[in-house]
Amino acid sequence: MEKWLVGVDLGGTTIKIAFVTFDGHIVEKWEVPTNISHDGKFIVKDIAESIRAKLEQLSESSEKLASIGMGAPGFIDMKSGFIFHAVNIGWRDYPLKQELEKETGLPVVVDNDANIAAIGEMWRGAGDGEGNLLMVTLGTGVGGGIIVNGHIMHGTNGMAGEIGHITSIPEGGFPCNCGKTGCIETIASATGIARLAKENALKDTSSSLYKIVTEKGEIQSKDVASAAENGDQAAIRTLDEVAFHLGLVLANLSNSINPGKIVIGGGVSKAGQTLTSRLQKEFNRFALPRVSEGAKLTIATLGNDAGVIGGAWLAKQNM
Amino acid sequence: MEKWLVGVDLGGTTIKIAFVTFDGHIVEKWEVPTNISHDGKFIVKDIAESIRAKLEQLSESSEKLASIGMGAPGFIDMKSGFIFHAVNIGWRDYPLKQELEKETGLPVVVDNDANIAAIGEMWRGAGDGEGNLLMVTLGTGVGGGIIVNGHIMHGTNGMAGEIGHITSIPEGGFPCNCGKTGCIETIASATGIARLAKENALKDTSSSLYKIVTEKGEIQSKDVASAAENGDQAAIRTLDEVAFHLGLVLANLSNSINPGKIVIGGGVSKAGQTLTSRLQKEFNRFALPRVSEGAKLTIATLGNDAGVIGGAWLAKQNM
Repeated sequence: MEKWLVGVDLGGTTIKIAFVTFDGHIVEKWEVPTNISHDGKFIVKDIAESIRAKLEQLSESSEKLASIGMGAPGFIDMKSGFIFHAVNIGWRDYPLKQELEKETGLPVVVDNDANIAAIGEMWRGAGDGEGNLLMVTLGTGVGGGIIVNGHIMHGTNGMAGEIGHITSIPEGGFPCNCGKTGCIETIASATGIARLAKENALKDTSSSLYKIVTEKGEIQSKDVASAAENGDQAAIRTLDEVAFHLGLVLANLSNSINPGKIVIGGGVSKAGQTLTSRLQKEFNRFALPRVSEGAKLTIATLGNDAGVIGGAWLAKQNM
Repeated sequence: MEKWLVGVDLGGTTIKIAFVTFDGHIVEKWEVPTNISHDGKFIVKDIAESIRAKLEQLSESSEKLASIGMGAPGFIDMKSGFIFHAVNIGWRDYPLKQELEKETGLPVVVDNDANIAAIGEMWRGAGDGEGNLLMVTLGTGVGGGIIVNGHIMHGTNGMAGEIGHITSIPEGGFPCNCGKTGCIETIASATGIARLAKENALKDTSSSLYKIVTEKGEIQSKDVASAAENGDQAAIRTLDEVAFHLGLVLANLSNSINPGKIVIGGGVSKAGQTLTSRLQKEFNRFALPRVSEGAKLTIATLGNDAGVIGGAWLAKQNM
C-alpha cells in the first residue's frame, strides 16, 4: 500500500493540512480555522480530529498515513519540537511534537513556518531541486529560509534565515517590530512598500497614488505594482527604492552563502516581473559576477501550498 | 602504529606543511618557498619532496602518513580538487589533487585557503569545536569561511564565504580589486584601514598619525591600533569607522546564518581588544538580541597554523 505523508502549516488564522505522496504530490488539501482561545490549547486536538475526519471521508484507515511534518510560527527547538513562544498562537513552552504525536499516534517533526515554505519550494516549486536555495517571503513582514546542501539551515540557536531583520538603513531608518530600526522588513514588506508609496505619493500630486492616499488614507502594496506598470512616477520611485535595498541585501547575503536559486514568495511577489526586473539589476550590481552567474532569481510557484509540501518533505526525511 | 595526517597550506610566497596527529596536535611543522616559476609547475613536486625529506629526518617511513589535506588560493572545484585559476600561483585548469596524489601516493583533499583556516580554528583554535562558525580574516584583503554543522559551506559554485566583497558603501565607495566599489575589503583590510587612517590623519595635524604620514608617506594598520590605544583622535575615528562597517556586515550576516562563534583572524586581528570592543558594540546594535546572545565574537588563536591544522582536519574527514 502506498502511504501518504501529512503536511501541516499552522498560521494565526488558519491551519493548512494536506495529504501528500512520497514524491511530493498533493492528494488532498484543506484548511481549518486556528482556534487561539485558551492559549491555543485546542489546536493540536483540532488537527488530529480534522485528519481523522478527512481519512474517513476518503474511506481510508489511519494505516494510510506514514508521518507528519509541521510548520509553526515563533521560536522552535527543532530537535525536541518544543515551542518556546508563538506570539500569534498563544503557545509558550509548549511541547508541540509530543502533543501531536500523542493525539495522532504518528511520528511528528516540527520546524519554523518560513523554513518549511523554503523546503517546499526547493522540493516541488521554483527551487526545482536546487539544494542551495535562499527563500525570501515578502508578506506583512519579511521572512526567510536558507537551504544548504538540501537541508534547512538552523544556526546555533534556531535563528538562521531571519533575513527580514538585516539592517538596510543603519542610521535614521523606520522602527521595526523587532525593536531595531531600518530593517529590510520596514522597506520590502507589503507594509513597508505601502508606507514608502504613501510618502512618495504625498510629494507628487500628479501621481495616481496621490488620489488613492487622499481618498482612502492608505495605499496597498498591490496598487503600487499596477501604478508602476502604468508609468506612475511615485510608484516607480517606490519600487526602485525597494529593489535597491532588497537587491543589496540579497547580493550581500549571496556573496556569503552562494545560493543556486533565490526564490521570492509572499503577497508582494505577485508584482512579478515589475519587481524582479528591478531586483535583478540591483542584485547584479552588488553581487560578485560568479555569484550572479550561479544564482537564479525567481518567483515562488507553490503559493499557499509551499508550507504543507515542505512539511511533507520534513515528514519524509524524518522516517 | 599511530599515523599522522599531513596539512598543507599553499600561499603565494611560502608553503606551510605540518604532520598532525588524529586529535589535531602538530608533531612537526615547516615551510618551503613557493616556486611560482613556469606557472607553478614545480610546486607539487616540491611539496612531495619536502614531505619525504622530513620523514627521513624524523626516521619515519612513508607508512606513517595517512592522508593529505591542502588549502590553496583561488577558485577550486572541491570535489575534483581541480584549480580553475590561482592568480598568485600561476595555475590555470590544474588538477592539483590528482598531481599531488601521483607524487605522494597518498589520498589528497583540496579546499580554499580561507575555508581550511576556518575549519582549523573550529577544530583546535578559537572555535573550540563550535560547529556553526563564521571566520573573517582581516589581512591584505578580507577573506571568510563559513562552517555549518561542522562542515565548510561551499555554496552552489564554490563562492560561499566571500565575505570581503559584501558591499558596505553602495554609492561612492572606494574601488575594490574585485571590480566593484565599497566592498568591506576596502575598509576593514589592513590596506583599507591604512587608507582610511591616512585620510583621517591628513585632516588632523595634531594627530600622531599625521607625523607618520608626512614623514613616511604611508601608515601601517598596526600604527593605527597603537595610536588609538594612546588616545589619538584620528586613529580612534578610523577604528570606529571600521568597526561600524564591519560590525554591520557581521550582524547582518549573523541575522541570516546565526553562528555560535565569530572568529576574527589575520594581521589586523592583532589589534585585539582595541578592535573587538568597538566591533562588539556595533554588532550588538545591528544583530537581533537572540542572535547576539548566540554569537561569541573572538580573536583567532592558531595564527599561521590554522591552515595546516584545517588541512589535517579535511584529510581526516576524507578517510
